[in-house]
Amino acid sequence: MELNCPIPITQYKQVLLAHGGGGKLSEQLISKLFLPQFNNPLLNQEHDGAIIDFNGTRLAFSTDSYVVQPLFFPGGDIGELAVNGTVNDLACCGARALYLSLGFIIEEGFSMDELWQITQSIKRAADHAGVQIVTGDTKVVDKGKGDKIFINTSGIGLIDNHVNISSSKLKPGDDIIINGNIADHGITIMLQRAELQFDNEIKSDTAPLNEMVQSVLEISENIHMMRDPTRGGLASSLNEITKKANLGIELYEDKIPIAENVKNACELLGLDPLHIANEGKILFFVDPDDTQKVLAKMKNQKYGEKSCIIGKVVEKDPGYVRMKTTIGSTRIVDMISGEQLPRIC
Amino acid sequence: MELNCPIPITQYKQVLLAHGGGGKLSEQLISKLFLPQFNNPLLNQEHDGAIIDFNGTRLAFSTDSYVVQPLFFPGGDIGELAVNGTVNDLACCGARALYLSLGFIIEEGFSMDELWQITQSIKRAADHAGVQIVTGDTKVVDKGKGDKIFINTSGIGLIDNHVNISSSKLKPGDDIIINGNIADHGITIMLQRAELQFDNEIKSDTAPLNEMVQSVLEISENIHMMRDPTRGGLASSLNEITKKANLGIELYEDKIPIAENVKNACELLGLDPLHIANEGKILFFVDPDDTQKVLAKMKNQKYGEKSCIIGKVVEKDPGYVRMKTTIGSTRIVDMISGEQLPRIC
Repeated sequence: MELNCPIPITQYKQVLLAHGGGGKLSEQLISKLFLPQFNNPLLNQEHDGAIIDFNGTRLAFSTDSYVVQPLFFPGGDIGELAVNGTVNDLACCGARALYLSLGFIIEEGFSMDELWQITQSIKRAADHAGVQIVTGDTKVVDKGKGDKIFINTSGIGLIDNHVNISSSKLKPGDDIIINGNIADHGITIMLQRAELQFDNEIKSDTAPLNEMVQSVLEISENIHMMRDPTRGGLASSLNEITKKANLGIELYEDKIPIAENVKNACELLGLDPLHIANEGKILFFVDPDDTQKVLAKMKNQKYGEKSCIIGKVVEKDPGYVRMKTTIGSTRIVDMISGEQLPRIC
Repeated sequence: MELNCPIPITQYKQVLLAHGGGGKLSEQLISKLFLPQFNNPLLNQEHDGAIIDFNGTRLAFSTDSYVVQPLFFPGGDIGELAVNGTVNDLACCGARALYLSLGFIIEEGFSMDELWQITQSIKRAADHAGVQIVTGDTKVVDKGKGDKIFINTSGIGLIDNHVNISSSKLKPGDDIIINGNIADHGITIMLQRAELQFDNEIKSDTAPLNEMVQSVLEISENIHMMRDPTRGGLASSLNEITKKANLGIELYEDKIPIAENVKNACELLGLDPLHIANEGKILFFVDPDDTQKVLAKMKNQKYGEKSCIIGKVVEKDPGYVRMKTTIGSTRIVDMISGEQLPRIC
């Protein structure tokens, strides 16, 4: 047992919002404080969940708490987010999400009617994703000690025998495919919070991706890795991956899909869309032999119509994400270090 | 889809603390709002968790959020509670707890040092209970929108082939055994909150009960049901059981174990110890043929030395818990309807 807190507390005596933001400080908290403490092979897989073998039946197990503010936003609400987010984390482990738990932490005085709306939304999202809510818990905290409602969902999914997803399979040359436009969710929440009536068409991309993932895994055994670029955006997810795999990533700026109105909102707000949170987006790292097959399959799916190749894994500059910009130069894409917007999910 | 909220909102337009207190209002929220909405056979088992069959491998899956205040108290802290609580919920399903997830919701400004203390406590408790933390999530909410730290743990446990625990097996004549003194945890928290220096010896009974449960399940196939009487105390747990099973329960007041100082604290505070939360306590409902064998086994265990029979299941007055008092009369023991003390766990 260490006698001193491993986070340099002279630097951070208190938890900052950025420690939950998905960027550098989140990464520090996890890698310095949590992982060494709980150190075990299942945790150290560092998937979006743990993969557990029960007598040959492989299950994925994942958890996420949802604290998004506001609770209701264009394109979704906290309930839908809580279902889709955990379903997608399981999908990134290669698992078919089957069962979810539901933990509510409600602030005293929260509207019973809004609780009921959220409950209905959870049910609709669960039905849409084909998962069941099988167990739950409700806690109520005193007024002023919470913020309306926080939701935890944990989930169990089944991994088919032929599926083998692992960051250790990542290799130079792998193509990186995304299933559509980036930054929709984050910009939606930001505009709501800023009460900016920017564009009614901008809405969250929250969606369950399990069906698309399964359909791709059925036609290709060369999906090396998957990741959903949520908190911290595309930049943080890709940086994490390069650092763990000790490989580089090259992005093609002109290929990264983004809606015109979302791009304009980013420019107006002075934000880099690569740092903005996504919800219904997933990155596939695919052996180039299978890229076209996978891309064709994805484009056939409801949540994959705009799928495209946005970059590739390279040997050069391990630990770094470089982007070929539209003007022909190359720039380093770094993880966000502070907190762009708290409580995005 | 119903068009109106099924909770009579003219009566409860807002969520009250008592909706999370484990008593009548909690029961109403669950039975009227959540269960009908998510209705499915696994949820409807209404165990402390769901029991799921994967090709013959039976797993239990459970979730709980911990919002206890204060975070540190005599006998334990929120971290230890979060591990033991979920381990015990799995134990009540007849499962060996194996894997836990860990979801933190931290308030901005929370002390990094306390976070580290809690992390260490979780690790110690997990080691003590023989479970692994395999996946996690950290969210940070703005200052004033949380209360230091809330923790969700969800867990997966394995149910041995010979084990078959179900409320449907409960029958008249079953003995009810408890593994020790009641009301320790709730009174500890109450005295802390009231800042009463009542008695330094009163401390939380938080403990992992999985080892004791497994040892009992190994020697008896006639354990019909188990339940940990946490929020709402012994009275709420037993009332829930009688109502679901449509059977009665008879309690023997003079047999219910309670420490003298805890009893005195209850009298001083005007509280019924049957309504006070327990943590490291479990109720076994046992076929009388096996009662003595089970009792002997329990008394041999670290957390079962004070085990004793406190009542039995009866046909009379289905849906009610009656208690033979020490003065020879009989009284109805009802579920608590309001909220005795919020955030007990």
